[in-house]
Parts: sequence; C-alpha cells; structure tokens
Amino acid sequence: MWTDLVDIGRSPTTGGYRRFALTPEDGQLREWFEQEATRRGLDLTVDRAGNQWAWWGNPDFDGPGIATGSHLDSVPDGGAFDGPLGVVSAFAALDLLVLQGITLSRPIGIACFSDEEGSRFGVACSGSRVLTGALDPDRARALTDQDGMSYADAMAWAGRAPHLLAPDPEALARVDTFVELHVEQGRGLIECKAPVGVASEIWPHGRWRFSFTGRADHAGTTRMSDRADPMLTFAVTALAANKQARSREARATFGRVTLAPNGTNAIPSQVTAWLDARAEAPDTLDALVTELCRQATERAERDGTTVEVTVESSTGLVSFDVPLRDRLAAVLGGAPVLPTAAGHDAGVLSTAGIRTAMLFVRNPTGISHSPEEHAELGDCAAGVRALADVLRDLAT
Amino acid sequence: MWTDLVDIGRSPTTGGYRRFALTPEDGQLREWFEQEATRRGLDLTVDRAGNQWAWWGNPDFDGPGIATGSHLDSVPDGGAFDGPLGVVSAFAALDLLVLQGITLSRPIGIACFSDEEGSRFGVACSGSRVLTGALDPDRARALTDQDGMSYADAMAWAGRAPHLLAPDPEALARVDTFVELHVEQGRGLIECKAPVGVASEIWPHGRWRFSFTGRADHAGTTRMSDRADPMLTFAVTALAANKQARSREARATFGRVTLAPNGTNAIPSQVTAWLDARAEAPDTLDALVTELCRQATERAERDGTTVEVTVESSTGLVSFDVPLRDRLAAVLGGAPVLPTAAGHDAGVLSTAGIRTAMLFVRNPTGISHSPEEHAELGDCAAGVRALADVLRDLAT
Repeated sequence: MWTDLVDIGRSPTTGGYRRFALTPEDGQLREWFEQEATRRGLDLTVDRAGNQWAWWGNPDFDGPGIATGSHLDSVPDGGAFDGPLGVVSAFAALDLLVLQGITLSRPIGIACFSDEEGSRFGVACSGSRVLTGALDPDRARALTDQDGMSYADAMAWAGRAPHLLAPDPEALARVDTFVELHVEQGRGLIECKAPVGVASEIWPHGRWRFSFTGRADHAGTTRMSDRADPMLTFAVTALAANKQARSREARATFGRVTLAPNGTNAIPSQVTAWLDARAEAPDTLDALVTELCRQATERAERDGTTVEVTVESSTGLVSFDVPLRDRLAAVLGGAPVLPTAAGHDAGVLSTAGIRTAMLFVRNPTGISHSPEEHAELGDCAAGVRALADVLRDLAT
Repeated sequence: MWTDLVDIGRSPTTGGYRRFALTPEDGQLREWFEQEATRRGLDLTVDRAGNQWAWWGNPDFDGPGIATGSHLDSVPDGGAFDGPLGVVSAFAALDLLVLQGITLSRPIGIACFSDEEGSRFGVACSGSRVLTGALDPDRARALTDQDGMSYADAMAWAGRAPHLLAPDPEALARVDTFVELHVEQGRGLIECKAPVGVASEIWPHGRWRFSFTGRADHAGTTRMSDRADPMLTFAVTALAANKQARSREARATFGRVTLAPNGTNAIPSQVTAWLDARAEAPDTLDALVTELCRQATERAERDGTTVEVTVESSTGLVSFDVPLRDRLAAVLGGAPVLPTAAGHDAGVLSTAGIRTAMLFVRNPTGISHSPEEHAELGDCAAGVRALADVLRDLAT
C-alpha cells in the first residue's frame, strides 16, 4: 500500500508532499482509497462533507460501529506519515484481524477525512468540521485559495456538487467509537521510550489572519519618515509572538505570509500573515492572542499602518473520553498517555460527542510538517498491531 | 497614444500595472512601440540586448544622434507613468518638432528599454545593462523567475533567440547624447514649485538577496526552544534595515519576501527576502549593508538559523554630464536641478560613457511604484515641450 502512495504529490525538488484538497493529487489519493476498500470487499460511501468511508459490516443494519482512519492530504512540503500512516495502518490492522479470523459483533469502518491540513483553503479539518456541523457549509463554499478559486468552484472542478455539501448526521450515527492512529508530532514517546502511546487531550488552538495595511511607494525615493510600511508592523508582531509564546509555555508561529505588491523596489502596501497559536489552557491562549493584537495595534500606530485580525478557526480544549483512553492503555499493556498540541479530525469528532481516542506512533526526531518527518518501520508495525488489538477489543 | 496603452497589463482588482519582461503584456507593449514608430516613418531596430529603437534620420550615415525614451514595463501593481511617460513624451516631442518644421543636423532616436524594473527576473535595467556590457549575457540568460523559468527560455517563448543576447556596441555608437524623461518619484519638484526639473545624479543603490534558512517543523507541537525559525531572523533584520537607513539618511526596504513551505501550521524552513538599499554616498551604502549583514548573522546564531547574502545588482553613484545638465537647465529657463535615489536606464548609459541627462516631471503626491502614482496633464504637457526644446537645441 505504502509504495502506491509514496509518489503521489511528492515534490522532486524538496522531497516533501504537496497534497492539497480538490486537486489532481487529491483525486489520485481518493482513488487509492477506493481501490484499497474495493480490494477488501468493504462498503464504500462518501458522506455529504466529502469524507470517504469503507465499512466492514453494515452499521445501518448492525448498529453503530468502531471507526478508525485519518487523512491523506498534507501541508505544503509535508512529510509522508502525517495522515497517511493512520489510513494505511487502518487497512493493515483490518487485514490482521481477518488473518486472526475474528468474528465481529460490531461493524468496523475506515475513514479518510478530506482536507485535514487546510493547506489550500485555510481552515483545518474542513472535512470533519462540515460533517459534524462545526463549519457552516456556506462558509466552507466561500473559502478561497491563493489564486482566488472558491471551495465551491474547486468542488465542481473535482466533479462534486457544491450545493450538496452539508453536515451528515446519518454518516455520524454509524460511528459509536472513533480511534485515530497518527504519527506523533513531538518527542513525548521518545522520552517515554515507547513505540505507541494513547492521547489524553488536544490543546486549544486556532488560526488568526493578521492583515497589515500600509501604502505602496518607491523603495528608493520615499524618505523613511514619509513611509507607511506594513512590513515593520509585521516584523514586530512576529517577534512579539515568539516572546509571548515562550513566556507562557505556549506556541505561536507565523509560517505563512503573503505580500502585495511583492516587488523588490516597492514598499509593500499589504502584508498578510497567519498566526498559528496553541496553549495548554484556553485562558492562556486567549491572553496570548489578546496581548499580540495589542502590541500589533500599538506598533501600527507608530508605523502609520493599520492591522486587522480575523479568527479563521478556533478549537477549544479537547479531552478524549477517559474510560476509553484507559481501556486502550490497558489493552496495550500500559501504554503511556500523553497530550498533544496538534489538531486532528479525532478532536473534531470528540467535540461533536462521539466517543473518541487516539493512538500515537513514535517519531524518532519529533519533526513533523517537513520532508524530514519519519517513523521507524518497527514502530509503524507496532502501531498496526496496537490498532488491531484495540479494534478487536472494541468490536468483538 | 496614452489611450492605446492604458489597458495593457492593468489589474482589474488593484488598478495597478503588471507589465513584466517577456510576457504577453510585454509583447503587446512592444507592438505598440512598433506601430507608433511605423506610423511616423521612423526606422525601427532592435538591438542585441532586446531594446527597441526608432530613428528619425540615419545615425549610421549621418553620425551619432540624440536619443530619448524610457521603458514600458512596470513593478508589480505599478503606476501608469513610471516608464511610459518617457516613451509617450518622446513620440509627442518628435511630433512637436515636425510641426515646428525644424531641420535636423543630427538624427533623433527613441529608445524603449527592455525590463527596466527587473520585476520578473530580479535584475533592474537588464536591457540597458546587457546592451552596455554591464550585465554578462550568460548571467542574464541564467536568471530565473518565481516559477523557475529562465530568462533564456522566456526569450525563446517570446520568439527571440537566446544565443543572440549580447552587448551591442554598434547600437550604442549611434547615440551621442541620451536624455530620458521620467515622472519624478519623490517630492523635490513640489518643493521647488516647478513642473519640470533636470537630474544631477543618481544615488548609489543595489539589491541584496538575504536567504534565511532554518528547519521546517510542526507549528503546534514543536517547543519554542526546539525551533530554528528563520522568520525571527528575518524580522529582526527588517527592523534593523529601517533603523540603519533612518540613522544614515539613507533608504532600506524589504518589499519582496518568499517563504517555504509557507503553510500556516508549519515553521518555515526558508525565508528569502530582498533588500533594496540606497544612499547619497557609496561609503554610506556599504556601511549600511555591512552593518545589516552583521546584525542578521548575529541574530541567526541565536535562532539556530543561517543567513546567506547575495548581491543581485549594485550601481555606484551616477553623476550626469555637468555641461549637458547646465545646458538643459538653461534651455528650460533655469529649471531646478535635483538628485534622485531611483535607478534608471539613463544611469546605465551614463556609466557606459554616453553623455546623458534626465528630465523629471512633477509628481503631485511623490508616490511611485503604486497604482496611486500620478502626474497632472498640464505637467505632462510641460514635460513634452521641455523635451522638444532640449532635442531641438541638441539636434539642430
């Protein structure tokens, strides 16, 4: 399975993946999922939010089942494991259960969520968020990519009907319990010396778009004192974000920036920068963002620029179901339980009231969202066995 | 003439111009120039560097002539006047001389220089620089645009033979004196209360590419202390550039930045930022850039990043020919003489030993390299009359 996936959307220059929603690469990845499901005789459905599901057993007839899976899309120049490891491990765990000749008392489903990273349209987990109703379909349809193409037009391009995009309570009702396996995106399991762990919670996190507006002008002839240069306001804000996050044991990153007109000899008229911020507690996150907005506005006054801050997405603290979490840790012989600052579709389903858990597979460098992201083969195999054990425990 | 030009390469959203070298828009602009030349019965030639020339009289037979003109390309979202005003005024001044029934003792030529702004391939005045030999044709051919297309491939796309790109001493030998008319890109003429002025010198200026390299990683899960974030190194450098320029009465701008991978939830692996810097004296400019490199490197060590600085172009002080400048000022009844911090093809020709001067037309806001750039119709007409007076004085 891994071999069929490995070349899709891989950049020959960086070695990183560029698998964005509603692109030709996305279409290839969806086909791959269809083929894996069909090969195993699973029932394939696509929910109204565009997420793919492959069911072993019939949840409409036998009652809600146990679902697993993850996503196949990537951040720009992302690694091979973030997302795909969860989907590939789901199929592999199913194969293991078939080999073991188990008899299901509940159906098992594999999900492939659409657009988890939000790389193209800016909203992470848009597939699971539309599914649960956390993201309004009208808002989703109106999202635009960097070239100004709307989510609705991109859907139509991909052969999907934009007007059918909607929450799908029937699809959700098929899921009693959801367990997502994911490569760890930090160093927690290295420190525990364990190949597999169980998630306790997801930190509150969100994305804020900072629009700094100044006045375009000639970079050579305009006196420094006559300028309204939004790059300066941004630079101060980026440094403040770092300082605020350090002092609060939180995270704050400006990793995406666009400029207009973006010419070497023109002072920018506009700098748009996206803040990704996360903290252990909601209050800490609020305080961090509020302080950052204050400092940005204060500097904007000095620079003769303006700053406008828009919340693009915001997710509160997700605490995974405690009995389920403890059961998984017990099934896995006392696997470590640890929090994460990364958002996941599992978090969205948990917030929608579904009993949800996550398994993490050790990441030997801790690096993620980078071509250098890695997981050892032995740890991946341990992940598949752990997922199979958990599914057997829950579905038989 | 202005009406035929006004829509070419104009963005419907910003109202600014996007006229870049070797694009369809560039082709339309070159056609416009051909038509204006042909309509007047001028001899049209293209030199080996790709610049267009239209001659009234034969400089190969009658000896070197008086040339005027400017460029038609723009910065991203540039104004309507920077460049085109000089070309349109050249044709209009010629029309005026014809109406006046003058008899030439020297040929008059109109030049349209290719790629003055360097918006696409990064090197300003590449047309005049290749012409004079200041830019090596091999280096020019190897320049690439944002999509990785080389100058050579873009030439081939535009129907020009890349291997023919070369200095053109024969074309240069046709020019005894060059006078470029240009919209002023500052507020000097407002302060003098004059519609037209004469240039004294062009400040030393250049472009430096700063490549800040760090390590891509997950924006949520990577502890602040484990990061190597090049955005922080860049932010400190951008603020330092502003401070250095202010304290030295110079100019320093970061107006163009590209990021990799440029994802909201990924720490950047690379920030590339272009510094445009200018100062009245070469020593001041050198000191500014040296100090900036020092501060960038110092901060990079703290951030765990690296910084590499590459000179993309560098032009020393251009002092226009003093007797010519004084003659022009006298012909124009004592027009003010003032320096500029903006680079021009006239500066490149002057450095190549051609007797060169510039006329500036008043800019009522001082704003340039912006859709807001403007010149009043009355001042433009005064510019045409001034150029005609100067050409008549030099060519009869």
